[in-house]
Order: sequence, then C-alpha cells, then structure tokens
Amino acid sequence: MKIEAEWMRGGTSKCWVFEAEHLQQAGASLDVLLPRLFGSPDSRQIDGVGGAASTTSKAVILHRPAGGDVDVEFTFAQVGIEEAVVDWGSNCGNCSAVVGLYAIEKGWVIPTGDVTRIATRNTNTGQVIIQRVSTPGGALPGSPDALMPGVPFPGYGIGIGFQDPAGKTTGALLPTGAATDTITAGGTRWTVSMIDAGAPVVIVRAEELGLDLSGYAGWHAGVERHLDTLEQVRRQAAVRMGLASTTGAAARAIPKVAIVAAPALQDPACDVNVMMLSMGRPHPALAITGSIALTLAARTPGTVLHAIAGGNQGTSLWLRTPAGVIETWSEEHDGSLLVGVDRTARTIATSTIHLPEALGSVVAASPAGATL
Amino acid sequence: MKIEAEWMRGGTSKCWVFEAEHLQQAGASLDVLLPRLFGSPDSRQIDGVGGAASTTSKAVILHRPAGGDVDVEFTFAQVGIEEAVVDWGSNCGNCSAVVGLYAIEKGWVIPTGDVTRIATRNTNTGQVIIQRVSTPGGALPGSPDALMPGVPFPGYGIGIGFQDPAGKTTGALLPTGAATDTITAGGTRWTVSMIDAGAPVVIVRAEELGLDLSGYAGWHAGVERHLDTLEQVRRQAAVRMGLASTTGAAARAIPKVAIVAAPALQDPACDVNVMMLSMGRPHPALAITGSIALTLAARTPGTVLHAIAGGNQGTSLWLRTPAGVIETWSEEHDGSLLVGVDRTARTIATSTIHLPEALGSVVAASPAGATL
Repeated sequence: MKIEAEWMRGGTSKCWVFEAEHLQQAGASLDVLLPRLFGSPDSRQIDGVGGAASTTSKAVILHRPAGGDVDVEFTFAQVGIEEAVVDWGSNCGNCSAVVGLYAIEKGWVIPTGDVTRIATRNTNTGQVIIQRVSTPGGALPGSPDALMPGVPFPGYGIGIGFQDPAGKTTGALLPTGAATDTITAGGTRWTVSMIDAGAPVVIVRAEELGLDLSGYAGWHAGVERHLDTLEQVRRQAAVRMGLASTTGAAARAIPKVAIVAAPALQDPACDVNVMMLSMGRPHPALAITGSIALTLAARTPGTVLHAIAGGNQGTSLWLRTPAGVIETWSEEHDGSLLVGVDRTARTIATSTIHLPEALGSVVAASPAGATL
Repeated sequence: MKIEAEWMRGGTSKCWVFEAEHLQQAGASLDVLLPRLFGSPDSRQIDGVGGAASTTSKAVILHRPAGGDVDVEFTFAQVGIEEAVVDWGSNCGNCSAVVGLYAIEKGWVIPTGDVTRIATRNTNTGQVIIQRVSTPGGALPGSPDALMPGVPFPGYGIGIGFQDPAGKTTGALLPTGAATDTITAGGTRWTVSMIDAGAPVVIVRAEELGLDLSGYAGWHAGVERHLDTLEQVRRQAAVRMGLASTTGAAARAIPKVAIVAAPALQDPACDVNVMMLSMGRPHPALAITGSIALTLAARTPGTVLHAIAGGNQGTSLWLRTPAGVIETWSEEHDGSLLVGVDRTARTIATSTIHLPEALGSVVAASPAGATL
C-alpha cells in the first residue's frame, strides 16, 4: 500500500499534506493510520515520516467540497510521537498556510491578479480562513522569494485571514458581555478582559502584577511569583466565559492568559508588549490564534488592550513578544472582517509513502473534527 | 529543479538515498546542494528534508559501476545541521544497510535463493561490504518482518558483512606488529591491544582500571576518574599505530578506546563486556565499525580480547554494552573473511525533492571520498 502526500513547510512547521481520498484507500482509521505512517510510537519516529518534534509531527488532510462557500476544507492532525494517538482538538495556524499554495500548485484554483484569494475552512474549529497568496502578474513567482522570522530560507508569501473570528468557541466576542471585568484572586482585584476570537484568552495588565513596564526585564521572574494567582484568574475566567462549570473543571489549555503592557517609550516598533502563559508557564512566543484574539481585543473599545493599543487606527497591529515582534493585519472584505498574519510556505517534496503492514479494516469512529 | 530520492531507514538511522546522476543534474557541488536540500544551516532544518538530528541528517549516494568487482558503489554523507557543510570522512554502518535493499527494489539485482548476496563498496573508506538480504524463496517478503533493537517496527533483514576489514586505515590488522603492547601513562603501565579493522581501536582491560568485573556497576564513575590517563593512552596509541606523528597531533575521533572485561559468571548471554569512549566520554553503545574491530581482536591470538573471548570458537560473538547486547558474525566466503552484523532496513517514502533556488553552476572540488 502506498499513499501520495506532499511534504510542505507552512510557516515554522513541517506538515504532511494528504488528500482525504488517498488516506481512505488504506481502509484504516486515521487514528491508527497516521501514527503508523509517522513512525509512532517512538520518540525518534525512526521508521516513519514524522520529524520527532511537535512542529514536525503534523498532518493536514484536504477535501474539495462539491459546492458551498469555500474552495477547500482542511483538517489538522497533531500526530503523537511517544504515543500512537492523534489530537484533532485544534487547528495549527502555521500548517493552515499550506492549503492555498497546495490548491494553486495542483490546479484546483487558477491564480488571478497579484493576490489570489482562496477560501478555506478548517474543520477542527469551523473557522473560515481566507488565504491571500502572492501571485504577482497572476502566477506564483518562479522561485519563492518571501522571508519570515524563524525560517532561514524563502517561501511563497501567504496571508492567512481568519474570517469573522469572534465567538467561535463561546458564541460571542465578549462572552461575559463586558469589555472588562473584575476577578478577585490572591487577595487582589484584577481588571481583565475576556475575549473569544481565534482562541479564548483572558488578558491581564502587567501593571497590576507590578512588572517592569520599560520592557521585559524582570517579567519572567515577576510572573513566576504570581503563577498561582494567575492560574486562579484563568480558572475563574473559564467559568465566566462559559468554558467550564466550575473552576476545578477548567481545562488546562483554554483560556490562555495574556499579560500586556504599553510598549516602552523608546520602542516605536510595536503597539503592545505581550507575554503569554501556556500550560501554566511563561511562553516566549505567541500562537497565531492568540495573536488574532489580541488583535480583536485591541479593536474593541473598553478592553484593557484597547486602552493600550486602541490609538492605533491602522490596519496593522504590532505585538512584541520575548521571541520577536508579530504583525497582524485586519481588513473588511465583502462584509466580513478578516484578521490575519503573513506566513511563507513551500513544498519540500512530492512523495509516495510506503505503508508496510496491513492495518486491518476496522474503521474506528472518527472524532467530530475528523469527518472526511 | 526536482531531484528523485528514496527515504529509507537503515538500522537505527534515516537516510536520503540518491542516484549519483540525479544529483549531478542540479549542476552544483554536493557540498552546497546537500545542505540546501536538507534545510541547513538551521538547527530545525525546517525548510528541508533533514530530520534535525545526527541520525536523521544523512545521505547515501549510489553509483552502478560499469564493471569491476561490486554491484553498487555508495558514498555516505553526514550532512551538517547548524552548519551548511558535509562530512565525507567516514561511513555509516546503519545507512550501509539500505544499499542492497535499494538494488533489489530497483531491479538492479535479481534476488536468488533464501539469501541474496550483493557486493557493495563504500567509497569513503574503500571497504567492500557484502550485503546478505533475506529473500526467502528468492524474493523479498511481502511485508517486512525482521526486528532489531532500537526500532519498534519491522524491516527487511539485512546482514552487512565487512570483507577482509583488517588494515584498511593503517595497512595492517596489528599496526605495531604485536597483539599486545605496553603503554605507560598516569604513572602506570597498561597492557593494551591496538587493532585496525573497521576502525582503529585501542583496547584496555577493565581490570587494570580497577573496575567492578561483575557488571557495569560503577564502570561509569570509575572510567570518569581515569579519563585523563585514558586520553594519554589513546594519544600514545595514535602514534604507535601510525595515525599521528606526535601525541599532540592525534585526532580526536581515532583511535577509539574500548574497555573490556570478561562477562560476569551469571551472564551467559555474552562473550565480553564493553564500554567505549567516544570523543573523550563514556558511550552507552557501540558503533558497527567498533564491533568489527572487537570481533577481529577476539579472533586474533595474543590480544587482550582473545584472552577473554577467544574460547568462543563459534561464528557469532556477543558483545554486551550498556545499551544492550550486540551480535557480530564471521564467515569465510570465497577465500575472504566477512565480519558483520544484522540490521533491518525499509523504504519509508519514494520522493521528488523540490530545490527552489538556483545554486549556481560552480562545482567545488569534491573531497576524495565524494568522487561520483
């Protein structure tokens, strides 16, 4: 059994890209098939196509709907490494950036104009993502020529715009109905904003944590001292946003916590300083979904972030993280709001993956997000 | 520009396997082309086919000689990760195991009998390696079914036999002419054997280091106390073996140091306990080339290893390392001595790698080992 796939870089991830019908030929559950193709379970994934790191053990499964509002539907799969499991629970913004390029390279979409717009839907989240692929003169450049931070080689320039991202998890941009709320934790009252766009995020002001507002000096140590309190804030936010019935039942991954401050006076290159907490720890970077949430917060009067960055009336927002500055853009298009980031993508190899053993014909129930 | 390649697992490594003429089409030096295909320099190799680890940043380049004594010649390339360089200085025993399988899968060699013998030459070292591919009934099994330690999935069973491996570096199995020699270092006289087979190795007795002979308990700590002295022994051995003109000029990588002891009485599963030093540090495993050297030493009367394991008159030798027991085999065949190990190998994917940019037509001088 051999299965066609393209190996593509999307942003700072490497993804194996499959067409749904090619995987179906294997006659096995994707929860069994994908780990075997990737070489899992094995910390080195030495007998498969996985890269033995979370950013290189990813798959994207494409499907062309017969009709409807999008050109391509795609499902993201985070393939386990030490465990033969697949996590269908979220999308990967970086891998999303391969979908439009794939559609052009396979002739599914004919490029037109300097920017070709391709409508895609991520089935894990239901999010429509409009891909703006650079096609100067109506074609992909002869050689990829766009650069992005974290990738030393050029790719094709691709903007991924989240269409009307507000409320995808809870039903509302402001799940509590208010742009700011007060949460009491650790004996203190915290002024926070709870936002659902891209992902649910609770935004806390660095000032209230007593952090150094001139930059990141000391943020890490300062945040470490407040981790317990911030976790209490996060769990209370989960309940207020309708994500959990009790603080004890709050999920570990959502909402995320964002700590924000106005940039230092001597830093004209950004609109806001941000430090995210991920799984309870300070994180040096900012996921694409988190950047979408913060961009919507900055656009929404009354939030703690609007007070910091709302003076920026342009279409771009610059967010400084410990790992560097991230730019997001917003545009109104055909009555929708698109909020996105620019990535690069490239096809690394066109492959036929060898599946050595029969995996049995039992097709396990697919998780909701994995319907093909 | 697109370049055909097979992605294969050989033993515990993943290797990209190219036919020489496919690489030549790119019109660039391999020292430039391979790092770009692999995504180097980049610690993550995120824009290429490299796996961001030494065991997954390897290439094998195949060439079918028009005549001569072997079916396939192959060159091994260790592709740098953080640096855009290629190391042509040695062969990789694990990757060697893909060559015979490739020859059968491409129809270069027609399998005959239960074991198909394929003669190959590694051009980095000049070593002829006879590959014994399991082909029960004259064909590869329908599904790969051979297992080996360190790989959780089956592959095709392949024995790689080093043909007459003695003296490939220095011209003689015993470069000093003696099976044992005395080296004075750290105020002590050490009885050692210096062997050149597969790789140059100097063998030291664990007993003389005062190590616990009932097993590995305490070996690591005991060896750590003697590291300076063992490095002096190693450098003197380099001079005695003709590998360096002075101890100061001795290379860091060769000779290797092997510390050996008779197995504990309660361990009938092996013939000798071994701990290697690699780059000056105790190493948990044993490279294939090192296992060849120790096997020849065990077969040679008068060496410190023959005194331990020479009672074994069989065709197999079992070497216990901290990472597990390694079996080597020896056979006389057509007037030659073959010494080898059994591996498994499998083709993971048949690919066309996309080379996005022109790399220029300057063909840098190839290192001696890289002649194609």
